[in-house]
Amino acid sequence: MKVFIAGIDGYLGWALAQYLTEQGHEVAGADKMLRREWVEEVGSTSAVPIVSHEERLAGFKERFGKDLDFRVGDLCDYEFVTGFFEDFKPEAVVHLGQMPSAPYSMMDQKHCVWTQTNNVSNNLNLLWAIKEVVPEAHLVKLGTMGEYGQPNVDIPEGYFEVEYRGRKDRLPFPRQAGSWYHQSKVHDSNNTLFATKIWGLQATDIMQGVVFGTQFPGLGEDPRLRTRLDFDQCFGTAINRFVCQAVVGHPLTLFGAGTMKRGFLPLRDSMRCLELAIENPGEKGDFRVFNQFAESYSITELADMVKEVGAEMGLDVQIAHYENPRGELEVHYYNPDRENLVELGYEPSLDVKSELRIMMKDLMQYKDRIMEKMDILVPDIRWDGSRRRSEMIGEEPETVN
Amino acid sequence: MKVFIAGIDGYLGWALAQYLTEQGHEVAGADKMLRREWVEEVGSTSAVPIVSHEERLAGFKERFGKDLDFRVGDLCDYEFVTGFFEDFKPEAVVHLGQMPSAPYSMMDQKHCVWTQTNNVSNNLNLLWAIKEVVPEAHLVKLGTMGEYGQPNVDIPEGYFEVEYRGRKDRLPFPRQAGSWYHQSKVHDSNNTLFATKIWGLQATDIMQGVVFGTQFPGLGEDPRLRTRLDFDQCFGTAINRFVCQAVVGHPLTLFGAGTMKRGFLPLRDSMRCLELAIENPGEKGDFRVFNQFAESYSITELADMVKEVGAEMGLDVQIAHYENPRGELEVHYYNPDRENLVELGYEPSLDVKSELRIMMKDLMQYKDRIMEKMDILVPDIRWDGSRRRSEMIGEEPETVN
Repeated sequence: MKVFIAGIDGYLGWALAQYLTEQGHEVAGADKMLRREWVEEVGSTSAVPIVSHEERLAGFKERFGKDLDFRVGDLCDYEFVTGFFEDFKPEAVVHLGQMPSAPYSMMDQKHCVWTQTNNVSNNLNLLWAIKEVVPEAHLVKLGTMGEYGQPNVDIPEGYFEVEYRGRKDRLPFPRQAGSWYHQSKVHDSNNTLFATKIWGLQATDIMQGVVFGTQFPGLGEDPRLRTRLDFDQCFGTAINRFVCQAVVGHPLTLFGAGTMKRGFLPLRDSMRCLELAIENPGEKGDFRVFNQFAESYSITELADMVKEVGAEMGLDVQIAHYENPRGELEVHYYNPDRENLVELGYEPSLDVKSELRIMMKDLMQYKDRIMEKMDILVPDIRWDGSRRRSEMIGEEPETVN
Repeated sequence: MKVFIAGIDGYLGWALAQYLTEQGHEVAGADKMLRREWVEEVGSTSAVPIVSHEERLAGFKERFGKDLDFRVGDLCDYEFVTGFFEDFKPEAVVHLGQMPSAPYSMMDQKHCVWTQTNNVSNNLNLLWAIKEVVPEAHLVKLGTMGEYGQPNVDIPEGYFEVEYRGRKDRLPFPRQAGSWYHQSKVHDSNNTLFATKIWGLQATDIMQGVVFGTQFPGLGEDPRLRTRLDFDQCFGTAINRFVCQAVVGHPLTLFGAGTMKRGFLPLRDSMRCLELAIENPGEKGDFRVFNQFAESYSITELADMVKEVGAEMGLDVQIAHYENPRGELEVHYYNPDRENLVELGYEPSLDVKSELRIMMKDLMQYKDRIMEKMDILVPDIRWDGSRRRSEMIGEEPETVN
């Protein structure tokens, strides 16, 4: 199948390009290479060394024996998108090409407005370009479980049947996202649903949990083909940050009580789920919502697992609580559905601890790179719009085990 | 009270500036004067003649004996907004400064993306500027009843209590907006709710019905103070269009069967409702949703009333059905609540027919201006993204009376 990947240079995008090629799909993609700039802007770097665009292409050609059509360009430039679609004629469009960080979007007015206008307009451009150039193509849009927020009821997959004052309807499940970034994904979900309704496009909206890990099937031995791994407060996701902190002997930075729950999945499962969505499109006019995660855990449970796996590897992992810079409920009900992908054949690949062992061993090679950025491990971007480094709560790192 | 009006040059904004000044409030406002450009772009003009920015200011000074601080500038320019707020220090910010047309937003990719980025970013700018400059100020944000779409259950005011799989929560009522413009208002509602939650701002989100009419309390005799009235497919709302069509002897252009229902209110009631919202702010952190309309009618019922009032004035009003250019249900359940404004003291001022008599008499003076634009009375912007003039359904205009 011909698959276009928007955001092909990113953590997920670069992995997906290789994973799908390995599975026999024909891949092309675009990226403005902004993730590299953002991470530099916030004073960090990828723990796993990554190479330039040109070197990635060379590595890809050597590994797979063919050229990858990976163009540097802006998805907000509509002619760039339609021109690429005219050339490549994708059957599936996977949209991973957005600014993906909650704290980055919360920094100030400029980052907030930029995040929303960038994400909303590039998603609209993909919808329009599909409609005008490849109306049969299936859009697989990356959203986030964070779109739902923290409702006090079960979280279905996108829709729910409700009875209200004696009448019934099937309605979109209300979204209560907790950052300007997450809100941009809600706007995209609403826009994408509308496009499927008026134009008969077909789309799958992926409400993805927190991804972690460094490995995926299809990754060869060539270091040029490694995908990035971030550990800063903006672009590092919870487990990825914790493992990097464990590797350099910094206490794991739990926000507040750490009792918040999230859905998680390893990078390899993210690839598998996206593949299932791509290979099993719906019908024209369908707007499918997939909640995409392997397991739900509280942040403290994850920290405990990182501590345990660290101990196996001889690391003395400390767990510390810091003032929570975010506006969120720390104690909340959390019970999201996860049926649609299972029905298509998804089975979680490895338990969290097995995956943690693999990634921790992998990241220990890059200890020195992370050590250079020790000063960015504690968050300072606060949801009230101010900028202040979170203090540790209590005098000593707490051992939770 | 010091009231800042974003979009002070528009149909509602220019009326509100006078209405509130007449009520003793101190008003200032900004506008980029884009409404004038958009209406020209779609080949139309205001039925009621309007004057330049400078002449409006001169007329205002003569009528009220004081200068109006009305600055021409872009709400997407954050420094413009914060600079104005620093000078004026508003206690209430009424946001009427957005692109307000569904068909305009549906025209093509460019109009769609521009509408959403303009509306979303200028609303975000107002939220940030309130937070940073006047955090006690109350935002009164103009949304639309169209944000709710056409659910098969009653439409509450913003929130509803639901029981789902045995658990209960109070959730935002799902929005299912029917155009890119309406979607932009949904994005704004989500963003505004989030700002009240994380920053403790106070906001009232006005889900307004379709406004019609030319008159409002506070309007003097000076022609320089008249507010605009549009009758084209983009900026003319249903009743305003119908009355202009009646005046020039064009059949009323009902879309499809015309059985779609909407909430309506006269311009004078819109002013009164906004005043009630402004004078009765909530608490810090409140996000109130007001459904703002006087009565619900189907489009055919309104057309019949226009026909009847026309007959009283000697006009032979024909009613015709045209292919519906929009994607919408023509037969649907519609039962929106309207309690919050009533609790604050809102009582509908005049029945529709009394208001129609006033505006029809008023608009008959401008028959020649409308006659010049006869070619733009039938819609050609279609929800499927194409551009084709709607054909009349059936050979003859149908008399529905």
